[in-house]
Amino acid sequence: MRLKEPVELNALADLIGAQVLGDGTKKVFGINEIHKVEEGDLTFVDVEKYYNKALGSAASFVIINQRVEVPEGKALLYHEQPFDAYNSLVKHFYRVYDSFDLEKRVSTETKIHPSAVIHQGVVIGHDVTIGENSVIFPNVVIYDNVHIGKNVIVHAGSVIGGQAFYFSKKEKRYEKWHSCGSVIIENNVEIGSCCSIDKGVSGITRIGEGTKLDNHVHVGHGVVIGKNCLFAAQCGIGGKTIIEDDVVCWGQVGITKDIRIGQGAVLSAQCGVSKSLKGGRAYYGSPARELKVVQKELAALRSLPAYFKKG
Amino acid sequence: MRLKEPVELNALADLIGAQVLGDGTKKVFGINEIHKVEEGDLTFVDVEKYYNKALGSAASFVIINQRVEVPEGKALLYHEQPFDAYNSLVKHFYRVYDSFDLEKRVSTETKIHPSAVIHQGVVIGHDVTIGENSVIFPNVVIYDNVHIGKNVIVHAGSVIGGQAFYFSKKEKRYEKWHSCGSVIIENNVEIGSCCSIDKGVSGITRIGEGTKLDNHVHVGHGVVIGKNCLFAAQCGIGGKTIIEDDVVCWGQVGITKDIRIGQGAVLSAQCGVSKSLKGGRAYYGSPARELKVVQKELAALRSLPAYFKKG
Amino acid sequence: MRLKEPVELNALADLIGAQVLGDGTKKVFGINEIHKVEEGDLTFVDVEKYYNKALGSAASFVIINQRVEVPEGKALLYHEQPFDAYNSLVKHFYRVYDSFDLEKRVSTETKIHPSAVIHQGVVIGHDVTIGENSVIFPNVVIYDNVHIGKNVIVHAGSVIGGQAFYFSKKEKRYEKWHSCGSVIIENNVEIGSCCSIDKGVSGITRIGEGTKLDNHVHVGHGVVIGKNCLFAAQCGIGGKTIIEDDVVCWGQVGITKDIRIGQGAVLSAQCGVSKSLKGGRAYYGSPARELKVVQKELAALRSLPAYFKKG
Repeated sequence: MRLKEPVELNALADLIGAQVLGDGTKKVFGINEIHKVEEGDLTFVDVEKYYNKALGSAASFVIINQRVEVPEGKALLYHEQPFDAYNSLVKHFYRVYDSFDLEKRVSTETKIHPSAVIHQGVVIGHDVTIGENSVIFPNVVIYDNVHIGKNVIVHAGSVIGGQAFYFSKKEKRYEKWHSCGSVIIENNVEIGSCCSIDKGVSGITRIGEGTKLDNHVHVGHGVVIGKNCLFAAQCGIGGKTIIEDDVVCWGQVGITKDIRIGQGAVLSAQCGVSKSLKGGRAYYGSPARELKVVQKELAALRSLPAYFKKG
Repeated sequence: MRLKEPVELNALADLIGAQVLGDGTKKVFGINEIHKVEEGDLTFVDVEKYYNKALGSAASFVIINQRVEVPEGKALLYHEQPFDAYNSLVKHFYRVYDSFDLEKRVSTETKIHPSAVIHQGVVIGHDVTIGENSVIFPNVVIYDNVHIGKNVIVHAGSVIGGQAFYFSKKEKRYEKWHSCGSVIIENNVEIGSCCSIDKGVSGITRIGEGTKLDNHVHVGHGVVIGKNCLFAAQCGIGGKTIIEDDVVCWGQVGITKDIRIGQGAVLSAQCGVSKSLKGGRAYYGSPARELKVVQKELAALRSLPAYFKKG
Repeated sequence: MRLKEPVELNALADLIGAQVLGDGTKKVFGINEIHKVEEGDLTFVDVEKYYNKALGSAASFVIINQRVEVPEGKALLYHEQPFDAYNSLVKHFYRVYDSFDLEKRVSTETKIHPSAVIHQGVVIGHDVTIGENSVIFPNVVIYDNVHIGKNVIVHAGSVIGGQAFYFSKKEKRYEKWHSCGSVIIENNVEIGSCCSIDKGVSGITRIGEGTKLDNHVHVGHGVVIGKNCLFAAQCGIGGKTIIEDDVVCWGQVGITKDIRIGQGAVLSAQCGVSKSLKGGRAYYGSPARELKVVQKELAALRSLPAYFKKG
């Protein structure tokens, strides 16, 4: 996330009880996980084998659990528990942390265009915008930091902006990363009933213009979906995966995290996608592969019992 | 949909700015998509290769984008954009178009039997009926034009009567068909938590008497389910598919649109059904085929690695 | 379920119009289905082939539809419709039977720790407890008899404590077993958006400490999940299945009812599990088997079309 205004590194060190290594008067512009950092950002690292990755990343500032040499142009915060320190900064600066206004069903900072229709039972968090002519059907929940464009339809019972399913394992327990990202729904998108679209851990989950989701579709944290895609009912997309424009997924397709589906790919119902796929082709099966390849294998398999019997 | 009262074709032509070809004083009784038309209905066609199908259908009236010869006993409306014209008629005559009463959680035209229990947080649209002894659990949403029989149970968070996931592709963009159908839930049906049952595009989605749905089941637009069927959790059924009586689907079964599943068929968990299936048999796998055939193939496949090694 | 206080067998006989066979002054401590009975419990049997199982079980009392010999130390209730009699006793003693307070969104008997946050639109039934620092996000529904520990997070639109999907078939119709069980969510559990966790038919559904569920996860009646498990989005678990500690299920995994998944098992996305699995191993496919075995078969299958062509 970008900070609303830059903060001196010394001030962050005070908040988390860390020791500054290097120039503490530098300004921090954002707090982000390692995959999303830009110059001016603060990130963290707590495992020695990732030290080089973090210290060599675009991040200008790193919370670290060893007093290492400070790379040129950067500054470090030494802290024994970098992950906890990072999480507490996220909580501090992510002003409301998915709190809803307990008395009102629409939070006051939220900006809803007068032509938009918000039906009964909808609950809307802070820092939400809803554009012209959009319709939010009953009992939808919109968490903090969600931006919905024009002519968008969200059907009943869907949840937009929920927190990322994203944990670090510490011995046997899972520790939650506090999500400080957002969701952007572009113009002319339609979202079915009972869908869930999580916010990014520290980035943006985006549904591109004109894309249509059927019911019960799950979109994980930080997923980016292009324009004019179709997702039939009960599809699920893992965190940070990128779906290019014009992709069609039929029912119950599952797509793993951190991959890319190329423009115009068509995925048959129940495809299970574990690797990035090229665009412009049809895919089938679990694991999903090109339709024409899988068809040959299925034909061969069908003749196998007779072949063995004869043999 | 049936019109509340028949309307002269000339009046419809005025509404959409169309030119009447043939006798404009004839009465129109319904507006329906091509798969659902009966005598007296108006439909549309905008692609030349489907002209014969539309003009030869049971529909008495067709909106069409060419000045063709008028078939005997019929009349036509010439319009450059038949799809848009059709959609605007649907919007005009489908009185409320899934609007909810913004101030009240139960719309006034709706008829709920005094013995029915409507729990907290339920939101109910227009033209809804709920019969004797039915129980609607908290936070269920019922869109316009839904008819629920006696002794029906709908569990929390389910959505009944949502709009069809049904689009026409125009160049790269998808244009939505406005749904004007309805949902009928017959007596003694039970619907689990977080289910979605969409209304028909212009027809009826029906759940037959005594059928039971577990949680997270998706029933597409215009699906017709027979009596005493069982659907375990997370099954999904595509639009307009017909499920005959006594069918059992175990968890996560996916059934494509526009097919028929015969009476008493039993579908194993995670079946993926892409073609119509005969009744009275057990099916397995994705694509779903008869259990006993698939079992032989799986057995052959299991011995294949050793066979190749030996060879 | 345990009765709030023991009741004399004669009193139960009066309630259902049954005839006591044996000593009617004995005290009944609980009413449970045959899989859950302990000494002091009442159960029922209505099919002759299960007579021995019921009469030889730990249950001290059995509703039965034949005047059989009374086993030593037990007593029987003779009734022509044991299932109906059982169901009506459950309804009678399960005080509120998933009724919600129609005027209030939180029922008065329910105990919510002052530090817990209950957001807008949440509806909570009777006999619910919610512990320290737990957060229930908007529009969640919690049925009767649900106990939530400390530091638990339940995301928007989820339904906890819904009734079991559990029926007896009578000729062609399905008759519902009235659920009288409960749900226990232990400390530090996180439950995603749009999840459903059903109560036990007469026992407990339990989610162990530190376990995390992503969105759209279905947990059936009486399921017992251990500590520190992970379930990715859209997983479904059938009734009474036991998941030991540290199990990881990736997206869209389906697990059948009445089985056991061993400690530390890892199930790939879209696994379909039809049999109990040993712990400490990785599984793949539908039907799910050990990853390394399935990989060999898939490799063999890939070479099969060329092999047949060559042959």
